Amino acid sequence: MEHEVLRKLRAEMRKDGYDALVALSLDNATYTAGFTVPSQLSNRFRRVITILAGDKFAAQILVTVEENLARERSRFKDIRAYNQFTQEPADVLADALIEAGVGEGRIAIELDFMPAKDYIRLVQRLPKARFEECKDIYFRTRMVKTDEEVAALRQVGQITDRVIGEVLREVRPGQMEKDVYRNVWNKMLAAGVDNLKCQVGSGIRSGITNCMPTTKAIEKGDVIRVEILGEMDSYRSNLTRTAVLGKPTDEQKKIWGVLIRARETCKTMLRPGTPVADVYRAYVKVCRDGGIEPTLKFLGHGIGQTIHEEPYITDTRAIVFEPNITFTMEPLYMIPGRMGFHVEDMYVIIPKGYDKISGDITPNDRLIELTA
Amino acid sequence: MEHEVLRKLRAEMRKDGYDALVALSLDNATYTAGFTVPSQLSNRFRRVITILAGDKFAAQILVTVEENLARERSRFKDIRAYNQFTQEPADVLADALIEAGVGEGRIAIELDFMPAKDYIRLVQRLPKARFEECKDIYFRTRMVKTDEEVAALRQVGQITDRVIGEVLREVRPGQMEKDVYRNVWNKMLAAGVDNLKCQVGSGIRSGITNCMPTTKAIEKGDVIRVEILGEMDSYRSNLTRTAVLGKPTDEQKKIWGVLIRARETCKTMLRPGTPVADVYRAYVKVCRDGGIEPTLKFLGHGIGQTIHEEPYITDTRAIVFEPNITFTMEPLYMIPGRMGFHVEDMYVIIPKGYDKISGDITPNDRLIELTA
Repeated sequence: MEHEVLRKLRAEMRKDGYDALVALSLDNATYTAGFTVPSQLSNRFRRVITILAGDKFAAQILVTVEENLARERSRFKDIRAYNQFTQEPADVLADALIEAGVGEGRIAIELDFMPAKDYIRLVQRLPKARFEECKDIYFRTRMVKTDEEVAALRQVGQITDRVIGEVLREVRPGQMEKDVYRNVWNKMLAAGVDNLKCQVGSGIRSGITNCMPTTKAIEKGDVIRVEILGEMDSYRSNLTRTAVLGKPTDEQKKIWGVLIRARETCKTMLRPGTPVADVYRAYVKVCRDGGIEPTLKFLGHGIGQTIHEEPYITDTRAIVFEPNITFTMEPLYMIPGRMGFHVEDMYVIIPKGYDKISGDITPNDRLIELTA
Repeated sequence: MEHEVLRKLRAEMRKDGYDALVALSLDNATYTAGFTVPSQLSNRFRRVITILAGDKFAAQILVTVEENLARERSRFKDIRAYNQFTQEPADVLADALIEAGVGEGRIAIELDFMPAKDYIRLVQRLPKARFEECKDIYFRTRMVKTDEEVAALRQVGQITDRVIGEVLREVRPGQMEKDVYRNVWNKMLAAGVDNLKCQVGSGIRSGITNCMPTTKAIEKGDVIRVEILGEMDSYRSNLTRTAVLGKPTDEQKKIWGVLIRARETCKTMLRPGTPVADVYRAYVKVCRDGGIEPTLKFLGHGIGQTIHEEPYITDTRAIVFEPNITFTMEPLYMIPGRMGFHVEDMYVIIPKGYDKISGDITPNDRLIELTA
């Protein structure tokens, strides 16, 4: 029998009336094939394409360099390797769609990722086919996790929760932001994590969103913002903590109090049936009542094999919570040129409400105070 | 005066008769703007677009989340932030091109990266414009490095050369592939490297190209292949070493001898004026004379802000070496299901011939023998 993920995707494809479903992005191709083709992490000229068509057709296209790895790891038995210097992947794709009998069919494909060049070629080769965006099929299928996926997220989330607390407690005046970064890597790899990204901003740099660590020394009085994005067995974590090296000022405590109050209000709304837009509106309201205008236009985002996926917790989304949706909430307030505040944890919707995936190991109701 | 990189790109754009040059990929947008927008590393729905048009127009498009960071770091003064939930980046791009007076012009743009969705929208908005692939302009401009770029590559290359030797010498029977990976991270970060990728394959897994480290224990008699791809100040290293835990067999020594002989032959050809295709053909000939059919269809690749860039050392390229071209050579021979051999170093063409960027710190003329 076909793998559960392929069956789910094929069913969604059929339900929407498509003859084929084609993925090209790192996240959707990985989700479909069940493994990451390493080239996709570092070489954007090598295409990886998964194809489901009709009731049975299933094939994966990749470069010859990784053919053997794919035969070892992929869910697809039909591996079609192409020579990156002499062949056009769009031709290999067109040939496969013709072979599958859907060359004049309605094809759901990643228009939001597929390079224009491949699209132009595919339209030339299959002028009678209709190509439509497949983003929603993948978002929908991936948004509600299997129990195994939730367990994988819990594992990497809890490791990250422990590590983020440890590295903050080990911060000393004079340490560079890059030292904190290195400490994160050490502890995360020791715990079995495969890969990560990490942002560290101190002092006025804490007020820069997505702030890469530099050689800046952390000084007494600095606000320190650490965000860790872990990856383990292809599943991700995303946690952020803010701390002060020394005593927080009254202004800092007040801002933090508003962000936490907003988050706690939102937590009371987390259950199957709640529209994510309502949660976002509640967040904005509590912040504004507290005199703060939220810096981001979303409160959080789905998390799974990618850091940002659906549901975005924002008022442009019509999504309603259901069990096994996993996501982050990340109240964030930046004062550019001065300092920034940000706290992010992972959650999962369960039938009775929600479970915290992170947040118990390194608590954050109060702004973290570090010994200067 | 405009930054040197922007002037070079604008000149190439004009030389080819284009009215505008538009980049969207991580590597080309980073090269143009002089800094990486962090979202581009983990969120493919957030576009980063650089635009040069006519003699003066220069603007960068990115999401509001990273507007402040861009104002701090980008070479562009004209930063145009868009709301990722309510605005189409292709519209912001179309508006900018119209404002620059090239809305009906000939536009060089990354068709090989730009999502089909944005392309379709842009063609709707600017039906009289002509869009053509700009890959060659960027390859050409980026292929010949400035002296500062060569210095940056030398720095990260030499650190990697030292680290790859140290981690191999620290391999002990029973160590897992993931332990080697962790050791690589430790040493690379301690040396100031920002980020890296690393492949470790032992035993029959050494025969898998692009092999991710697993929990497999390394045993006496195993061939061990370690490839490190470092990143420091946005410039990359790419080195590979192969070792045997214990005494190499005669077969292993023979294969290694052929690969090294092929590489040494190629080294004698490295100088301005040599076509890269000739170097590749010489490599293939020496391998075949030694009874080996090279596994890859290229001997090496350019390296700079990306791991793989031009010149690919292969017979499908018409490129001729010139000073300050930086590249790797990586003789590679895999016997699937048994073992694999691979050695990779970095080189730079200079007026008199070439310089090794790596290879002196961890030599590899003989197959590395580790104490079991």
